[in-house]
Amino acid sequence: MKVAILGGGQLARMLAIAAHRIGIEPWVVDPSPEAPAAPVAHHVRGALDDPASWEAIAHCDVATAEIDHAPSSALAWLADRMPVRPGSRAFAVAGDRLAEKRLFDELGIDTAPWSAVDSLDDLRSALHRVGLPAVLKLRREGYDGRGQRVIRRVEEARTAWQSLEGRPSIVERLIDFDREVSVLAARGVDGDVRFWSPVENRHEAGILRHSRPLGPGETGSIEFAGRRVVGSILDSLDYVGVLAVEFFEVGGRLIANELASRVHNSGHWTEEGAETSQFENHLRAIAGRPLGSTRLLGPTAMVNLVGLDAAPEHWQAVPGARLHWYGKRPAPGRKVGHVTLRAETRLDLDANLAHAATLPVTSSEAFSDAALRWQAS
Amino acid sequence: MKVAILGGGQLARMLAIAAHRIGIEPWVVDPSPEAPAAPVAHHVRGALDDPASWEAIAHCDVATAEIDHAPSSALAWLADRMPVRPGSRAFAVAGDRLAEKRLFDELGIDTAPWSAVDSLDDLRSALHRVGLPAVLKLRREGYDGRGQRVIRRVEEARTAWQSLEGRPSIVERLIDFDREVSVLAARGVDGDVRFWSPVENRHEAGILRHSRPLGPGETGSIEFAGRRVVGSILDSLDYVGVLAVEFFEVGGRLIANELASRVHNSGHWTEEGAETSQFENHLRAIAGRPLGSTRLLGPTAMVNLVGLDAAPEHWQAVPGARLHWYGKRPAPGRKVGHVTLRAETRLDLDANLAHAATLPVTSSEAFSDAALRWQAS
Repeated sequence: MKVAILGGGQLARMLAIAAHRIGIEPWVVDPSPEAPAAPVAHHVRGALDDPASWEAIAHCDVATAEIDHAPSSALAWLADRMPVRPGSRAFAVAGDRLAEKRLFDELGIDTAPWSAVDSLDDLRSALHRVGLPAVLKLRREGYDGRGQRVIRRVEEARTAWQSLEGRPSIVERLIDFDREVSVLAARGVDGDVRFWSPVENRHEAGILRHSRPLGPGETGSIEFAGRRVVGSILDSLDYVGVLAVEFFEVGGRLIANELASRVHNSGHWTEEGAETSQFENHLRAIAGRPLGSTRLLGPTAMVNLVGLDAAPEHWQAVPGARLHWYGKRPAPGRKVGHVTLRAETRLDLDANLAHAATLPVTSSEAFSDAALRWQAS
Repeated sequence: MKVAILGGGQLARMLAIAAHRIGIEPWVVDPSPEAPAAPVAHHVRGALDDPASWEAIAHCDVATAEIDHAPSSALAWLADRMPVRPGSRAFAVAGDRLAEKRLFDELGIDTAPWSAVDSLDDLRSALHRVGLPAVLKLRREGYDGRGQRVIRRVEEARTAWQSLEGRPSIVERLIDFDREVSVLAARGVDGDVRFWSPVENRHEAGILRHSRPLGPGETGSIEFAGRRVVGSILDSLDYVGVLAVEFFEVGGRLIANELASRVHNSGHWTEEGAETSQFENHLRAIAGRPLGSTRLLGPTAMVNLVGLDAAPEHWQAVPGARLHWYGKRPAPGRKVGHVTLRAETRLDLDANLAHAATLPVTSSEAFSDAALRWQAS
């Protein structure tokens, strides 16, 4: 069984490692000789939209992507030759914020007030409908807070619109949330769905800083609500693989923010904290194998390492810390690794997190005070 | 940081995967294009005793081995250029059963009665001293029950001697043990020593079939005794890395059987069952980093998969099972993977092990009834 993965970043790297472990041969396509997945997979060094790259993985049994914006030309070419999973509708939705919002609406899923924006006039009138503060987001290719501008006064509309180069966008009301939560699930070829514990997330400067699966008794009504939303998306897209949906929790209600039709940063803790990781279950799903148990093994948290310029060995002295280094060239704001913390009790976990909070997780240049917590309204 | 590993088998494969994760670049030397570690490491395809292979890893920062019989020429050449760990004395002892027994004697560690054997006459007189039944073992290059012959009557001495081609050997009394136990520990450059929980092992036909770390309350006095033995070996060899010592437990006493100066099959469960795995702590040790906690996370067991000819996907349906496939060409008696089982309680673990016992772990050709359990007296 050979799996082709479009994109060779850290998600492909962790997928590739899991693939070897369960007897699946990973092939990744990425133009960079320094792709994080390259040292642990067959590396097809080529552009994702180059037919020569497609030919080089035509012998694989199934294809998937680790990125949200895989070229539709590649997906279509591959779909004529092998299953492409999670599936064409999933890719269409994940690569386009407008299609994503329309899917949420179609399925009756709560979102912040939003509107499509194709011109400055659109934006100005939309701001009156959705309210302020709001955030303007490119429909395509934004991630980790890139391609987004917060608008606090109507007068800022022109600057925001110009800074996104007038490209097709959406605008939505900024939500004053109690906390950020994501729900991840895997769906098999046979329709079997497994949910991991809901995850509490904290972003800073648009980048996920840490995630913690909620233990029994911590989820209240949101676990059921989150599963209902994610289950309806999985079934409506006839989805195969791992799906992540990010929510804002407001007064016990879940407001859907966005989805990722792939393994997701807020699921990295599953490698240590769940019986089967998101990486293994994504591979099992797309390979047509039965899914594994998603049982929470115990108190766990994940901390992203951002922009650091060397493997942070001091992290290895934190009790319960397990380092995942991505082998990437560091750059300001770039995710270069993560650490998973495990403990016997929630109290111990919090103590270890407090210890961890004293350590550098980011280079000083990466986060200015002004950039911090932009998303909190 | 680049680590060179002599040998590219499954131990090197698992070391290489752990190395990437903690930001260490793995290089393996192995003559086979199908070496299990090749897909996850820089692969120097060459003989271990070929100077061209040594040159190809001369740029590494530290060297280690995943095999017991690394050529001394390679170790000496590398030692002039970089630290070679666990260390020259450790390699000398691990590659020679006579040196190993002498070390046990020197440190006052209990062993079965034994004697060096260089001729058939030696063997006959030794059998009178050590007693019957006994086992004749090649001094060098035996593993997984190979290069060993059980002798139950003095008349079998000639056949046994001839079957080992009259090469330098040792003979030792077969021990009527209550159970087989191994103790693994890691020692850092600074002399810090961390022990994992003692492991109960069961061999069949000379091959490890399953291992289970003993929980609190299951170890009696042997945990202290085992640590004393392993600690004395580590310190006497000024050892850096992971060491495994196999024991027979007889009436609450530990009799040392043999040691492995490397990561060991009976420690594979640590990947899931301990806070830091044997692979990570071996790498941390040889890289001069602080060691990680060896805390037991919960009830865990490991089952070896032997001689199977396809990735055993049905294993993925066993609750708590995590598959490790080595990507090897199957052959009778060959270890092709292992499965780690985890559960919340010992009762659940035993239920999962009972489930697992109904599944094939080996191809039918690999184990004849006659070959089974040869070591039980």
